[in-house]
Amino acid sequence: MSAFADRLIEAVRLRDTPLCVGMDPFPDRIPALFGGGLRAIEAFFAEILEIARTRAAVVKPQIAFFEALGPEGYALTKKLTAEAQAKGLLVILDAKRGDIGSTAAGYAEATIGAGGFDADAVTVNAYLGRDSLEPFLALARERNKGVIVLVRTSNPGARDLQDLTLEGGAPLWTRVAEMLAPEAKRLEGESGWSGLMAVAGATWPEEAAKLRAILPTSLFLVPGYGAQGASARDAVAGFVNGEGGVVSSSRAVLYPPAASEARTLDVWRAAIADAMDAANAELRAALRP
Amino acid sequence: MSAFADRLIEAVRLRDTPLCVGMDPFPDRIPALFGGGLRAIEAFFAEILEIARTRAAVVKPQIAFFEALGPEGYALTKKLTAEAQAKGLLVILDAKRGDIGSTAAGYAEATIGAGGFDADAVTVNAYLGRDSLEPFLALARERNKGVIVLVRTSNPGARDLQDLTLEGGAPLWTRVAEMLAPEAKRLEGESGWSGLMAVAGATWPEEAAKLRAILPTSLFLVPGYGAQGASARDAVAGFVNGEGGVVSSSRAVLYPPAASEARTLDVWRAAIADAMDAANAELRAALRP
Repeated sequence: MSAFADRLIEAVRLRDTPLCVGMDPFPDRIPALFGGGLRAIEAFFAEILEIARTRAAVVKPQIAFFEALGPEGYALTKKLTAEAQAKGLLVILDAKRGDIGSTAAGYAEATIGAGGFDADAVTVNAYLGRDSLEPFLALARERNKGVIVLVRTSNPGARDLQDLTLEGGAPLWTRVAEMLAPEAKRLEGESGWSGLMAVAGATWPEEAAKLRAILPTSLFLVPGYGAQGASARDAVAGFVNGEGGVVSSSRAVLYPPAASEARTLDVWRAAIADAMDAANAELRAALRP
Repeated sequence: MSAFADRLIEAVRLRDTPLCVGMDPFPDRIPALFGGGLRAIEAFFAEILEIARTRAAVVKPQIAFFEALGPEGYALTKKLTAEAQAKGLLVILDAKRGDIGSTAAGYAEATIGAGGFDADAVTVNAYLGRDSLEPFLALARERNKGVIVLVRTSNPGARDLQDLTLEGGAPLWTRVAEMLAPEAKRLEGESGWSGLMAVAGATWPEEAAKLRAILPTSLFLVPGYGAQGASARDAVAGFVNGEGGVVSSSRAVLYPPAASEARTLDVWRAAIADAMDAANAELRAALRP
């Protein structure tokens, strides 16, 4: 198996889009067509994955929403991860885990390990320091997986800590990026891109350019496009020559208005395909100015 | 039901110890007496809880290790949480969750919500900013639960980010504490203590005193005592008049050498009780100088 970065960039090139479909189950927004309960969520995402397989490079289950449904929801994440992979999609598990030593190794095993979700990549929180990343990096290197570190997020509260000015004048988030820089090589593939990725919120396009300078080979995971208000052009601000990461969209492609009004599965399918196609058209236009 | 802080401090006073028994399942270290697989882990902790109920104020399942065992391990955490509560123990779920908006609300529901683990408190990572804490605080206030924020951890890598000097000269972790200070009142109980707790690593006793000055009413969760090398006296450095939080010990009380050599359940039980009693004797001595 090739390096995660190579598999990701190849998937982006093949579909000609950096679209990452976020898998956020909102039971209230899943059309009645699918029935109710966990089975509705399972059926809903089975359809979403089928529509996404030719339209997105990668999917990103947001495990918080599955965990909120109880242990059965957690187990469903594993099932859907395997289903997405069987359809040829890469899976980024959005879990934002972070701990130290053997505990971090536990999370690494649970997310990208053979006995856990066996996802292709996982998001992690590095507030605990470099040693908290090591078990993830080691397992990712061994198993050709990716590790995606929260650097500069897309929420208003990102200002509270991430933007604090350090002695010397740089904001905290740049130090997080600098901490990653020496490790990027460990997950670099033949494409030259690294699977030690950074979360770079689309709502901060100027920061994305700065982050690209600190981490020239790291692929970016860009949240905040669509429902969170950032434009496609903002979302790709950290890209270079038309590539450099994936752009996540969840609610805009899972719950577009036309889909919520659909009374038949075919109408719903067409509405979802339209929403993904529209996102792709916007992203392609932003990448070819 | 009374505020989490009141329930915790009452439990500490009743057992006359701040001991928090960490529940870290290491399958290789669980004696053969218990059999193998998940059932061994379940049986092991059922015994641990029975021994701990009169010797510890609170228990702390480390969910990373359960997640590493797959979805069945995750489900087991819920079962053990309910079992501990049925035995009169409070449960801190050590999950170090952190995300934004509706995603953070998902984690809050999953950990301290009625549809999730319904634990008494949960550990969270605040790198994403104040807005990432809000859903936890709101649910905790509503349900008399606790929220425990990582401020200054006990690992060497804590220096990488938490200790960075901000413009003006203060380390980053003090700013995290300052961000919590205005919120502490929301989770204060009649005891005067707040269930908006802070993680204050025992390996940094001087920082604990500083942290106490910034957060005078917040109870502390102190990791790092025992296996991580901090003394009982270091562990209670942030306490005031003999109280102010709980001190976590995992491996030292779960896997003491005498227990691993035990060939009968009675011998094993006595070894575990001895290890907890020894921790309590040390902690009591440290608190009554």
